[in-house]
Amino acid sequence: MSRWKPDAAGRLVAAAITLFAEQGYEETTVAEIAERAGLTKRTFFRYFSDKREVLFSGSEELARRWLEAVAAAPADGTPLAVVAAGLPPVAQMFIERHDFARIRAAIVEANPELRERELIKLQTLASAIKVALVARGISPNAAILAAQAGVTVFHVAFARWVAQDDPTAFERLMDESLAELRSVTAA
Amino acid sequence: MSRWKPDAAGRLVAAAITLFAEQGYEETTVAEIAERAGLTKRTFFRYFSDKREVLFSGSEELARRWLEAVAAAPADGTPLAVVAAGLPPVAQMFIERHDFARIRAAIVEANPELRERELIKLQTLASAIKVALVARGISPNAAILAAQAGVTVFHVAFARWVAQDDPTAFERLMDESLAELRSVTAA
Repeated sequence: MSRWKPDAAGRLVAAAITLFAEQGYEETTVAEIAERAGLTKRTFFRYFSDKREVLFSGSEELARRWLEAVAAAPADGTPLAVVAAGLPPVAQMFIERHDFARIRAAIVEANPELRERELIKLQTLASAIKVALVARGISPNAAILAAQAGVTVFHVAFARWVAQDDPTAFERLMDESLAELRSVTAA
Repeated sequence: MSRWKPDAAGRLVAAAITLFAEQGYEETTVAEIAERAGLTKRTFFRYFSDKREVLFSGSEELARRWLEAVAAAPADGTPLAVVAAGLPPVAQMFIERHDFARIRAAIVEANPELRERELIKLQTLASAIKVALVARGISPNAAILAAQAGVTVFHVAFARWVAQDDPTAFERLMDESLAELRSVTAA
């Protein structure tokens, strides 16, 4: 008879990030992560295909929140305004993950394969936003340009957010990056 | 005594792309590429680490041309205007490579690993442009936003250029994408 395990995935992520910070990402095994979380390796593999996936465990929720906001954005906005509607709910999601994000950012930065995976995740996100914009009647070219611009704003603000100490600063940093993008692209 | 081989790299690229179009990328071997070019496998490996690298053989020249134009751009331009100075010389470089680019685009599109490599090359290009902008006194945030925007404009225009028949249309398509980016990001 197994005990009830509330939020096994969350416990595995927390255990993993603690171990990565303590002893390094490369040095940490799935067995150690599972043990620290009080779970089995088998349970780990029910949630994650490998250790690496733990670092990208937030990307589905990120995409879901962003796409919901795009779908709900007012019909009269510019394409970038529609994309930018996703930034506040995404910032909200990250407030409680600042420590995780900071540890994770250092790991990804130090590992070329993880940097590549990060790029691909961002590109997948941009493609999904593009599809959502096209579904709203925006032309494919405008949609891809606006989606890419929005994801770049997110990415730049994310790097600034993990480089400073205030977990609640993400939305402001995204606003600043968005304003800066508008400034650098102005004719 | 070996014969003098003018532009061995160019002949290898031409032979490779012909074979890829004739019989498929996956099905083509380095030995076949070398044979078609009238060269040895050993010569192939002097220029390319593998078959895949043939597809990315233009990326160094692309980066060089773009960075030269950024370095030579007028000092009073907006960050994006400085980045966009690289678009005409890049378009010029591609005019004679339209057939290559069209065959290559179909191969990359069909192969997830090549799509990832393409993304990484574009990201490397954006990072190099960012560094060049910072060297011109532009703030790091503005630099990365402008560099990413410029590379997206290039990428979107490239997709449109290979999807149509006129090799000389690339510069016009880049101008249109740039204008469209300015339009979608306008406040």
